[in-house]
Formats: sequence, structure tokens, C-alpha cells
Amino acid sequence: MRALVLDRELAFRRDYPDPAATPGESIVRVEMAGICGTDLEMTRGYMTFRGVPGHEFVGRVVESARPELSGRRVVGEINAACGAPTCRWCHAGLGRHCPTRTVLGILGRDGAFADYLVLPDDNLLAVPDSIPDNLAVFCEPLAAVYEIFEQTRLEPSESIAILGDGRLGALIALALGAEGLTPMVGGHHRDKLDRLAALGVKVSLESELPPGFDVVIDASGRAAGLKRALELVRPRGRLILKSTAADAAALNLAPLVVNEITVIGSRCGRFAPALDALAAGCLDLAPLVSAVFPLEDGMAAMRAASDGSNFKVLLRAT
Amino acid sequence: MRALVLDRELAFRRDYPDPAATPGESIVRVEMAGICGTDLEMTRGYMTFRGVPGHEFVGRVVESARPELSGRRVVGEINAACGAPTCRWCHAGLGRHCPTRTVLGILGRDGAFADYLVLPDDNLLAVPDSIPDNLAVFCEPLAAVYEIFEQTRLEPSESIAILGDGRLGALIALALGAEGLTPMVGGHHRDKLDRLAALGVKVSLESELPPGFDVVIDASGRAAGLKRALELVRPRGRLILKSTAADAAALNLAPLVVNEITVIGSRCGRFAPALDALAAGCLDLAPLVSAVFPLEDGMAAMRAASDGSNFKVLLRAT
Repeated sequence: MRALVLDRELAFRRDYPDPAATPGESIVRVEMAGICGTDLEMTRGYMTFRGVPGHEFVGRVVESARPELSGRRVVGEINAACGAPTCRWCHAGLGRHCPTRTVLGILGRDGAFADYLVLPDDNLLAVPDSIPDNLAVFCEPLAAVYEIFEQTRLEPSESIAILGDGRLGALIALALGAEGLTPMVGGHHRDKLDRLAALGVKVSLESELPPGFDVVIDASGRAAGLKRALELVRPRGRLILKSTAADAAALNLAPLVVNEITVIGSRCGRFAPALDALAAGCLDLAPLVSAVFPLEDGMAAMRAASDGSNFKVLLRAT
Repeated sequence: MRALVLDRELAFRRDYPDPAATPGESIVRVEMAGICGTDLEMTRGYMTFRGVPGHEFVGRVVESARPELSGRRVVGEINAACGAPTCRWCHAGLGRHCPTRTVLGILGRDGAFADYLVLPDDNLLAVPDSIPDNLAVFCEPLAAVYEIFEQTRLEPSESIAILGDGRLGALIALALGAEGLTPMVGGHHRDKLDRLAALGVKVSLESELPPGFDVVIDASGRAAGLKRALELVRPRGRLILKSTAADAAALNLAPLVVNEITVIGSRCGRFAPALDALAAGCLDLAPLVSAVFPLEDGMAAMRAASDGSNFKVLLRAT
């Protein structure tokens, strides 16, 4: 099959082996896939992943032992847990933290930048017909945004800053807005900020953000994001870290202790709340799509996704 | 008066000016003072403080406009807040975070390594006669331990590791034990660990701590403490940071995000719960006192406090 393959360097290949499903897994033909900051980080060494990257997708089940899945349009949770009743994480419904999990396109499992992928049946969720492919493909990153609400309570009265005017920052801003919150996005790119402002989001150049926010969400994708967030949050405030970066930054932790900041690491979330929000139509994410490339032009798509002037770049199978 | 004075270097002086109280403040004759890791850090540049260090003390009020304080044996909260009704922090009872506060022996206010000190009347708490000086002097660091309970709920069923076998780590271990919890202290000093074990505390060489703790409390006093804590805490666990160090450490934040760790910065606490615990007699901290030096020998006392084989070193006025 066709695939983008990371092996030292990323390359487009036509001869990558078709995937095979083990019992309990389904084969999905990828219709559309999204390029995420993590994909770009992996090409720079994050997670030392080798294989097919890509973990944001919508596709159609082409082979499954489950009749209710066969032929259905689906999205899929990316963490494939062991599922053993003796696993404390799987047992608690938190397979996202199962220590022996594989992760689609990130850890031990080929991903979505290909014609086909394989996921456990339990990971797949049928997509309502009302959600088109170019919105359904946002389900995974949107679930990661909704994870914030499962970890902490955000109040409309709170001042919230989002660091980062890229893909993730924009998605967080729109999702929080749909929940009645009014975050301010701080970024470095005037063009991106203008585009977000046109969508009704409060924006500011990052250097001009005032200090004293109740909550700061770091979606900057930079190791230095925590340092900047610590400057912006009020004493006893909360920082929500959404960025995973391959590099390390020197950090003096004294302000975190002296100001009694709470830092909440936040990663993947359950898909159901995200699918519900998309089905309810309260979130129009289409303006975030900067470009759609055919899979054949995947290398160009990755370059476009690296370009700071673009928001979301998608791949489509045909 | 006599005082240890930090001005580029620390020195003992006999000619330091006696302090003067402004309206609303009392003058306290220091009976006993404790040397803390923060004091040692300040001699290495933390907070760029100049003046008399020392913030753990018990003393006697020798000059006060408040009759109920005059002549009383007292301890004192170290943050001197503005107290203005318009200050959101003071208004909320959180003068410990008032942005214009001074801090005894740490920020803009001479401290306790001297014959006399000055604090706002509101900061002083009378000490019950049942608490001797060598325990009352622990009130400030003990309040910092009890602050943990105001920030997060610790359950007896949870596994808790404390990083650091020094003053703070030992105090946290004993206070948590008094509250029915069973933390394990991980340290580098076999002699200190043995001494803690003799007090009934579970101990381990830090390098031999197993991973997977529900809660890790960093009292290591090292900038690298957070990195080590991240290795030891389970996914979705909590880290409580108690150390303030002058240096910065390089830190890759990806594990914090991927494992959805919550990091809670924790500093000073209210004195009342600590005084109550001491008065209730459920905490015997006397075994933590390694040595008591007269103020005149303050320089030797600071050296002794820097010696890793000692726990708490105290200064007494006479």
C-alpha cells in the first residue's frame, strides 16, 4: 500500500506492506488524516518512532469480525491498551495510560498516513452522517481538548490564556469558546492571530499578554512554554500543559513553588465528548483547514504543516 | 544588637542597628531560631537577599501597642502583607501571596538570626505554655507541611514517596505519619535514613525507590528533584514540590504531559494547624534537633547546618 514511512528520514512509499489484523482488531481504509505537531516532532526525534506516523483520521472499516463495524465510517481512539482485567489502568477505564499499550502512529503501531491502518475493535467509534470527513478528522485533537474539562473545572469568570497560535491553540480556543469560556490566545504570528480574531477569538501578541491569568494553557509546542506560562499565571493559578516537545529547557522551579502554582499535564481524551460536540454543530472547525493534500503528496503536506503560516493540513486518500 | 548579616557574604556582627517598629508592628526578642535550607540557599544567591536572614523563630514580645501581645511568647507568620482591603490576596485571607509583601529574613525585612526582629501584630501567635521553645521553633516549617493538606487530599490507601532525607523531608514524614499516612522517605544519606527509621519512618535509598507512587513529595532541595519525581510517580499521579532552589535544571516535560501528572507547588502555610498539632503532642520533633548553638556562634551553626549529617540546627539567644 501507499504510506509515509519514518525510518531515519520520512519518505513516501508505494510498496509498504498491507497491514494484517489480529483477532479483536479491524482494518480501516483511511479516508482523511490530519497532520499534528506531534507528527512533526517525531520527524525530529520525539519518541524515536519508526514506521507510519499519523494518528488523526477518519476512515471506513473494510475488515472486521464485528458486524456493527463492517463498512462503517469511523474514527478511532489511538491508544491500544492490553485490556487485561488484571491491568489497573484498563480495569479503571484508563487504557490511555496502560503501560504496555501501543499508540497509533506514535508507539509500536503503524498510523494513519497510509491507505490502511489497524486498530482494536473497541477503539473504533462510528461517525454520525451529519459530520463530514473534514470535521470528523478533528476528533482526536478535539478529544485532547475536552480532556481538560475532565481534569479541572474552568469557570466563565476565570481569565484564561492560551499560549500558541498554532493548530492546537486554535482548536483549544474554539472549543473553550463553544463551552462559554473566553480565553485569550497569545501567539507570535500576526497573520494567524488575525485569522483567529476573525473567528471571534480574543488574541494578543504573546509578548504583550498581561500577567495575572487565573489559568494558562500551554499549547506552544515549545519546551520553554512552561517558563513563559509561569510568568503569566497568578499566584495559586493553574497551568495546563498540552505540548509534548522533544527537547528540554532549563527551568527554575522556585516561582512554581513560591506562587503555589498547580501544573496539570494533559494529553489524550475520550472521543465521545468530542464526537458529541461535533455532532451538535456548536463548533465550526472548517476555517482551521489551511490545505488538503492527496496522500501521494504527503511529503509536501508535511512541509506545509511545518510552515508557520498554516493551521491544519490534511491528507486525503484519493 | 547582635546579628548574622548577609551582605555579599554572611558575617556575625555586634553593631547591627536595633530594629524599630512602625504602627501596627511589634518588636520581638528572639529566644530561639531554626536554620532552614532556604537560609543556606540565600547565602548562595537565592532571592538576592541582603540583611539578617532567618524566618523560623520563637521569641517574646518586648514592645507592642497590643496589650494581649505584650510580654507574650510568640511565633510569627513570615509574610508581612499590605493588608489593604483593595488587595485581592489580603482580602481573600491569602496575604502569603500579597504581591507587595515583605518576608521575614527572605524579602525586604530583616529576620530572626539576631537579638530582635519586627513583625506586624497580626502575624504573631501566642504559644501555649505546653510547647517548649525547641518545638515551637518548628512552627514555621511545620505550617509549610500542613499547607499540603490544604492543597490536596492525601488518603491512607495512597502510596507516598518523599524525596529528601534532610530537615524538610524528615519533618514532612513525621507530620504525615501523625496524620495516619505512611510515606516512604528516599534519600542519599544512610546515616540520616537510619535515624529516620529509628523514629518509625519507612526509608529507602533514593536510587532504590520503586516507581509507581500515587504521590511524590519533592523535598530534595535540588533543582533536579522534579525530574526524579517524574520517574517515580504513576500516570495521573501527583507531585508536590516543596523545594526552592536557586539553580535551574534542564527538564523534558513530555513525561509530565504524556502521563498526565499534576504538579502542585507548595510553600508557606497557616500557623494555626501546626500550633494545634504541636499543642496536641502528637508530634515529637525533638529527635530532629542535631545541635543548638548560641547566636554568637552563628557562623559555626550555619556550617553545621550545611553538613549533610545534621538534621535541624538551632540558634539560641543566650
